[in-house]
Amino acid sequence: MARPSAPELQVRRWEAGEWSNSPDAVVTEEPLQLLLDGTPLSVLMRTPGEDIELALGLMFAEGIIRSRNDVKEIRISAEAGESDSRVRVDASLVESNQVDVHLAATPRRRPERSMLSSSACGVCGAVLIDDLRRDLSALKDGPVVDPKILPALVEQLRSHQGVFERTGGLHAAGLFTLGGELVCLREDVGRHNAVDKVVGGRLLDERLPASDTVLVVSGRAGYEIVQKSISAGMPLLCAVGAPSSLAVALAREFNQTLVGFLRGERFNVYSAPERLTAS
Amino acid sequence: MARPSAPELQVRRWEAGEWSNSPDAVVTEEPLQLLLDGTPLSVLMRTPGEDIELALGLMFAEGIIRSRNDVKEIRISAEAGESDSRVRVDASLVESNQVDVHLAATPRRRPERSMLSSSACGVCGAVLIDDLRRDLSALKDGPVVDPKILPALVEQLRSHQGVFERTGGLHAAGLFTLGGELVCLREDVGRHNAVDKVVGGRLLDERLPASDTVLVVSGRAGYEIVQKSISAGMPLLCAVGAPSSLAVALAREFNQTLVGFLRGERFNVYSAPERLTAS
Repeated sequence: MARPSAPELQVRRWEAGEWSNSPDAVVTEEPLQLLLDGTPLSVLMRTPGEDIELALGLMFAEGIIRSRNDVKEIRISAEAGESDSRVRVDASLVESNQVDVHLAATPRRRPERSMLSSSACGVCGAVLIDDLRRDLSALKDGPVVDPKILPALVEQLRSHQGVFERTGGLHAAGLFTLGGELVCLREDVGRHNAVDKVVGGRLLDERLPASDTVLVVSGRAGYEIVQKSISAGMPLLCAVGAPSSLAVALAREFNQTLVGFLRGERFNVYSAPERLTAS
Repeated sequence: MARPSAPELQVRRWEAGEWSNSPDAVVTEEPLQLLLDGTPLSVLMRTPGEDIELALGLMFAEGIIRSRNDVKEIRISAEAGESDSRVRVDASLVESNQVDVHLAATPRRRPERSMLSSSACGVCGAVLIDDLRRDLSALKDGPVVDPKILPALVEQLRSHQGVFERTGGLHAAGLFTLGGELVCLREDVGRHNAVDKVVGGRLLDERLPASDTVLVVSGRAGYEIVQKSISAGMPLLCAVGAPSSLAVALAREFNQTLVGFLRGERFNVYSAPERLTAS
């Protein structure tokens, strides 16, 4: 998989009272203009690379598309240099940092609602979950994973995360088999983007729902990470960091196994612990 | 200052091959519906508490308001239980989790542009910075801060961060005097929100621009954190985590001193190092 770039800069370094000059690599962050059928949808900050997966993963999470067949063509910036054999790509847009997704039919959902910006009524966690209940079903029971394999997943994530090592500034999302084998790793300056890229890749492979996988994220598990992974049918979500109250409520409601603080030989299980059973 | 709540849950804990049951505190995450003159503006996920500061800080960063005088009244949910002596608050909204900011006059900027969602043209880091140049001036040279005081700022942040200790899930933003005294600390599940709360509080105190302060954030420094702190006139921004490429470009363009990886007795300076001079 392509490695996100990390430009080197000269910085002043302070250590125990002494200054020095030193090169330092920083993670690339650039805006991406997302369009739907030629109409601007949103601008997000992301690490360039796998922009097509990012766009499709985001639109999948928002309920705009459900499968690769919903996509007729993707137009991207001429200079993007990205290609993808799994979908029709037209690299002719003149403006930089653009992905324009053209659908095969009218979107199944107007993006307004799902982009969380148009509701005039009050919102709260319970209302959000009610709302999701219309689109999502609870994940089926199973599969079962041996809890002993979880600590090694984070080690695999770290060892494959080239840019993180150099910049300390990237989030990673890794998709694993139930046996603990890494299937797909994506990195991004944004936590949500890394997950969107994984889901987008899976959609292009026509392998959604991903009901035989474990998703591991390098950061915290907030509402959106849980929502995106449940949408993609992922039964186990493991985070190196902490979960939020709403993440736990959502995972419990939709029967997802949510693991937090996966560090060293320790972790906490916040929901559906029965999927973690020693073999 | 009010402490964000952290509900306790029962979780399954795995440690070195052994399961146990244990209580665990998780950070509260709830959506907030933001309205401008009664019209929905956006929904954000946040940790409840200081919602008025959050709303005003966000609107300040977006260029919608410039001072407390731009605000006529703030309507909040009846159950919010929040009061603020610095601004007129009407706690009568029936729906929960709402803040409706009513302006004294027409907003100086239409929110569409600043919410980064309407531009049909291509975007890139250079275009974003060009765009900001219309609204922001480069920070003036000075003041000077003794680099030796920086490591202690993170320790102060941590020691005041009550909920983080219990949940591991909160970001903090702390505003310090040039001598290293903590003036204001805000916590939130969202990194940007913590900074917006600090800036909103400062706006209510009529103490913007905050040109005699050091802002310290517990996470990484991305584009938006740098943009928000430059808008608020903060000459020094220190992050415990890594900066992004765009954050560095922005700090260099607008003459902000950007410090990253502030950990133990070490840190890196990515821009305007001349503000850090031993006394």
